[in-house]
Amino acid sequence: MRAVVFEKYQSAPVLTEVEKPTPGPGEVLLKVAGAGACHSDVAVFREFDKEHGPAQLRPSFVLGHESSGWVEEIGPGVGAGIEVGAAYLVYGPMGCGHCPACSRGQDTYCENAATMPHLAAGLGRDGGMAEYVAVPARNLVPLGDADPVAAAPLSDAGLTPYHAIKKSLPVLQKGGATALVIGLGGLGQLGVQIIRALTGATVIATDTKPDAMRRAEESGAVTVPGGPDQAAAIRDITGGRGVDAVFDFVGAAPTIALAMASVALQGRVTVVGIAGGTYEWGFYGVPYEVELTSTYWGTIEELHEVVALYRAGRITPDVEVFELDDALEAYRRLEAGELSGRAVVAPHGTVSAS
Amino acid sequence: MRAVVFEKYQSAPVLTEVEKPTPGPGEVLLKVAGAGACHSDVAVFREFDKEHGPAQLRPSFVLGHESSGWVEEIGPGVGAGIEVGAAYLVYGPMGCGHCPACSRGQDTYCENAATMPHLAAGLGRDGGMAEYVAVPARNLVPLGDADPVAAAPLSDAGLTPYHAIKKSLPVLQKGGATALVIGLGGLGQLGVQIIRALTGATVIATDTKPDAMRRAEESGAVTVPGGPDQAAAIRDITGGRGVDAVFDFVGAAPTIALAMASVALQGRVTVVGIAGGTYEWGFYGVPYEVELTSTYWGTIEELHEVVALYRAGRITPDVEVFELDDALEAYRRLEAGELSGRAVVAPHGTVSAS
Amino acid sequence: MRAVVFEKYQSAPVLTEVEKPTPGPGEVLLKVAGAGACHSDVAVFREFDKEHGPAQLRPSFVLGHESSGWVEEIGPGVGAGIEVGAAYLVYGPMGCGHCPACSRGQDTYCENAATMPHLAAGLGRDGGMAEYVAVPARNLVPLGDADPVAAAPLSDAGLTPYHAIKKSLPVLQKGGATALVIGLGGLGQLGVQIIRALTGATVIATDTKPDAMRRAEESGAVTVPGGPDQAAAIRDITGGRGVDAVFDFVGAAPTIALAMASVALQGRVTVVGIAGGTYEWGFYGVPYEVELTSTYWGTIEELHEVVALYRAGRITPDVEVFELDDALEAYRRLEAGELSGRAVVAPHGTVSAS
Amino acid sequence: MRAVVFEKYQSAPVLTEVEKPTPGPGEVLLKVAGAGACHSDVAVFREFDKEHGPAQLRPSFVLGHESSGWVEEIGPGVGAGIEVGAAYLVYGPMGCGHCPACSRGQDTYCENAATMPHLAAGLGRDGGMAEYVAVPARNLVPLGDADPVAAAPLSDAGLTPYHAIKKSLPVLQKGGATALVIGLGGLGQLGVQIIRALTGATVIATDTKPDAMRRAEESGAVTVPGGPDQAAAIRDITGGRGVDAVFDFVGAAPTIALAMASVALQGRVTVVGIAGGTYEWGFYGVPYEVELTSTYWGTIEELHEVVALYRAGRITPDVEVFELDDALEAYRRLEAGELSGRAVVAPHGTVSAS
Repeated sequence: MRAVVFEKYQSAPVLTEVEKPTPGPGEVLLKVAGAGACHSDVAVFREFDKEHGPAQLRPSFVLGHESSGWVEEIGPGVGAGIEVGAAYLVYGPMGCGHCPACSRGQDTYCENAATMPHLAAGLGRDGGMAEYVAVPARNLVPLGDADPVAAAPLSDAGLTPYHAIKKSLPVLQKGGATALVIGLGGLGQLGVQIIRALTGATVIATDTKPDAMRRAEESGAVTVPGGPDQAAAIRDITGGRGVDAVFDFVGAAPTIALAMASVALQGRVTVVGIAGGTYEWGFYGVPYEVELTSTYWGTIEELHEVVALYRAGRITPDVEVFELDDALEAYRRLEAGELSGRAVVAPHGTVSAS
Repeated sequence: MRAVVFEKYQSAPVLTEVEKPTPGPGEVLLKVAGAGACHSDVAVFREFDKEHGPAQLRPSFVLGHESSGWVEEIGPGVGAGIEVGAAYLVYGPMGCGHCPACSRGQDTYCENAATMPHLAAGLGRDGGMAEYVAVPARNLVPLGDADPVAAAPLSDAGLTPYHAIKKSLPVLQKGGATALVIGLGGLGQLGVQIIRALTGATVIATDTKPDAMRRAEESGAVTVPGGPDQAAAIRDITGGRGVDAVFDFVGAAPTIALAMASVALQGRVTVVGIAGGTYEWGFYGVPYEVELTSTYWGTIEELHEVVALYRAGRITPDVEVFELDDALEAYRRLEAGELSGRAVVAPHGTVSAS
Repeated sequence: MRAVVFEKYQSAPVLTEVEKPTPGPGEVLLKVAGAGACHSDVAVFREFDKEHGPAQLRPSFVLGHESSGWVEEIGPGVGAGIEVGAAYLVYGPMGCGHCPACSRGQDTYCENAATMPHLAAGLGRDGGMAEYVAVPARNLVPLGDADPVAAAPLSDAGLTPYHAIKKSLPVLQKGGATALVIGLGGLGQLGVQIIRALTGATVIATDTKPDAMRRAEESGAVTVPGGPDQAAAIRDITGGRGVDAVFDFVGAAPTIALAMASVALQGRVTVVGIAGGTYEWGFYGVPYEVELTSTYWGTIEELHEVVALYRAGRITPDVEVFELDDALEAYRRLEAGELSGRAVVAPHGTVSAS
Repeated sequence: MRAVVFEKYQSAPVLTEVEKPTPGPGEVLLKVAGAGACHSDVAVFREFDKEHGPAQLRPSFVLGHESSGWVEEIGPGVGAGIEVGAAYLVYGPMGCGHCPACSRGQDTYCENAATMPHLAAGLGRDGGMAEYVAVPARNLVPLGDADPVAAAPLSDAGLTPYHAIKKSLPVLQKGGATALVIGLGGLGQLGVQIIRALTGATVIATDTKPDAMRRAEESGAVTVPGGPDQAAAIRDITGGRGVDAVFDFVGAAPTIALAMASVALQGRVTVVGIAGGTYEWGFYGVPYEVELTSTYWGTIEELHEVVALYRAGRITPDVEVFELDDALEAYRRLEAGELSGRAVVAPHGTVSAS
């Protein structure tokens, strides 16, 4: 079959012929519906080399850590309930399966990660940017009759903000709550939609791109442009109290500073974006009891909940669909910043037929 | 001033002249904007007598435990921040003020209630169905520029469902959550609106009156008519799993039975209505880990949150406004079942002028 | 190998020769250290028949749903981190592995249970009352150097109260909290120890057997004998407020009634015992906001936490160890009520050698 | 009566004659049992002046923001349940009484603090370091027959760690949990005791003073000395995972750095101490989902819970009692670092007689 393979450090991936996988013990073979191209793939094939980067991300493997597909074949030892021909979304992270973190479906924090040969499907083991992919049955989330192609990005670009927002619900679930979303790319846009779908909070959003601001407004956010008075403008919307929960999808020093300048007493700031900025925390520089935290992907159960929102039409990923033939072009446009939505490669076309 | 007074057991209240109150220590005098007529008032003046009913509810006192008004005068010992002329909603329950429950603003569970001379404004001490009412400053919630007349019922008919719903949020805070509201009178309608305003849950609603069903649908609920297959129909909407949180605003044996037949594994059933029905609970008759509970009114802080929803236009009480001259007619129609919304008596007219 | 097999409905199990299992995909073969004999086994081989009882519990299979052992062999597809020769406790429940409940390690509530061929190791599929047992790797919890024989009952008699207690922590974790444990058999005794190990709550305990009361006192409980004034005596200990969390390990009508008569406003009653008693719940018969709920076993992650308490010496199951030759005698004494602690069958002796 | 009065900026307080207070509306007059001398008092009379420091802390007023006493007289408008002659502890913070924060008994976060004339009893309004003090009834917590003199420091040195610990319970409520206490002065020692009284967590403690380490060990902590390998030594105790909850009672740059180097994935770090150190937070420098937060005093209800622990003998403040004549000496020794426990001034002697 054809697949997009990361073959060599510091080189673009290639579209090449590889062997069609066979589902191993506890696994299922999917005919791929969609596979998202993500910025972290670019880090994998551009930034790492033998000395830098996790041992699990050595070439070569098929890319695609956010993917979906139709069940083609069920491997040995899979429990009841998986239907051949039905559409599923794939939870990417794949840990040891038996430590406390994996036992609760949070493979991202697998205690045996250091000795596992891979991090996720598409990150160390063959992923979904191919005609077929084999994944453990426990990583599957049923999509019902929802479009599986557009669903693909949900397994990262949907799950990551969902997890961060869910951990912040204690400060958001009350009359009069407010949230701030900084950075309105793919994750930020879904973040706005998810806050609106889970809570009644007023969502304030900001980005440097007018287009992104407009899309957030269409999802129900109040937008605030950048500039020296931005934190004050945000505070005004909250009646001076500050924002109950901030989600920084950029993570640069100025955005974290904006987050901390905007948050209310007893509020929560979650840095989601990985720009790697720092913030000088001090007892007297932050309102009392503000929680400053980070986040990373999410759990299998949460992905079931993300899919429930998607199936109910409450969240809509913004995607550009590419044929498998055009997958390398999709990555090129991703690197060049020429995409408006998430690039999804659909190896079997966009018609939802198994 | 004129006031609606409960003068004698088992008799309708009277509209009569009483002395205008003076705000005591820590109290504020309000010029009343609105005062709701509630079914529990009817219990007070129809059902109780010297032998039956709480000692605190002996005649005579001014009725009106859900009221609002403009600050006319501030008594001694009131802390900063109360504005003369501004509109406030009154939190009705009034406990000792210093036990653990009162210290957290939950006077409903005052540990000294048995030795207090009253339960609430309008329940043992003079309430808001009068031209003026004096209340402790801590019982005030600022209304800003929102209509104070229509707000009056929120202090009971809004706060009671809000409190019940807030305690149920742990089972409602996820994609795909479902809630069931049984009984669509004043509290049930606000219950539907509050669930919609605080969560993304699908709200299923039911009542015997088609009009009430229609109003719930306008608030975004899916309605299910009564009948032998009702629980099955409700389960169907939830994909067979059952409902995560049920709120029974009736509390009769058949409605509690419907609640328990509809609830999901690990779900929660809150009986709000006081019809006094019973339910025979058994380990094997209920899905595992379902919580069966009751509720009673709410806290001061929650009333601030209810008002935030009201000021944001997220909840709208359905009211019929009466002049003070017509207050007894309002109670007559309440007893006769002739009201479509909550009766609110507006002693100074419906124009929001102080 | 030799094993205790449930061969025929309504008959005692037999000790017989069966084939030594081979670990399947994702599975591990354990050399059994200990296997507990549980009352629910008796229900399986005494009460059920072709018409009554779950389809998954048809004969024949090896008993033993609470067991432990040393890893003998690792099957295909098992992730990193399982050590051959090391001791592990087995989480019994085994669901489909990929539904939301299984994804969070709560196989007890598997959504595909109805179409699964078994409920747990020892309940529909071969369990641990044998020389060897094969179980999925994700069901293993490492025991370190703690005694694996005495540990065996923890996977049911420890996990069940732990799960119930953990869900009740919100009402127990404060200065001045109180808990009531009704029924001081194996689960109740561990319940007392777990409450003491997780919280600072005063534990009140009651049972009809003086010996059981004495053991609970040794674990730090205050005991209250039965009798007409029992609920009043319990309330006295709490300063009149009532108990914050009640755990009824019996579940008969009188014990549930005692629980409901003893609980405080906003408290929680969990029925753990399966005696099947009923309780007539009514709005006015129970303090406001009391939660009445049931419970069933627990999660894999919680079993890791139970083992942490065991390894730290905070909980100590009371066991009587039997050779495999005496396993049928262990069941006989269990049925006859002649055991003082949990019967654990140790097929390879009590010396912790792999 | 005699009182310790802050009369002039940047000067030691004086012991002088002032008028005996009269309880105002909603207030109670206490005959003082004990009043603690706190480091923040020193900041008030040494560091501030007309330009620096909160407007509410202008001289002159009686010091003493952690105090206790026997009810001497009840003012007008106090609800049922306060007993003349009984002993009470005083919750120090005093806000407007009617904003959302005050309504839930968290006057520390009063929304009208900026326009209030004081922050607390002993901080802007007359406090307890005198023969008598008048306080609002809602600030009283009954002590029963527990020693009121030694209790005095609990209202700050007990409540502050209690509040911080209570907010951290979600990460501490499990078998195998670990906590780290940095800084073993008065608050830190009570912190160790409170963690032990509320949870089953292993408590690791550290300080530069061997005496303080020994006292923490007596309370059940495992101690770790300072030095370059300190974080590694702490991690070792946790089996390499790191600590679930850290409480830094110092708040200097090196202690915050130690906290962040010791905390586990998904753990929580609370900076309690006000040394004002900073920490450079970065996404990649901290384990995922760690919450970094601060804390400030606590709520009235929590003070009731602290007193419950004290009355049960679960926490014991370490105090040195001084006569009122020696109050200035107590402050002198506090400034000189010559105290081993909290200095408590007992104006009517140490015998608990009203």
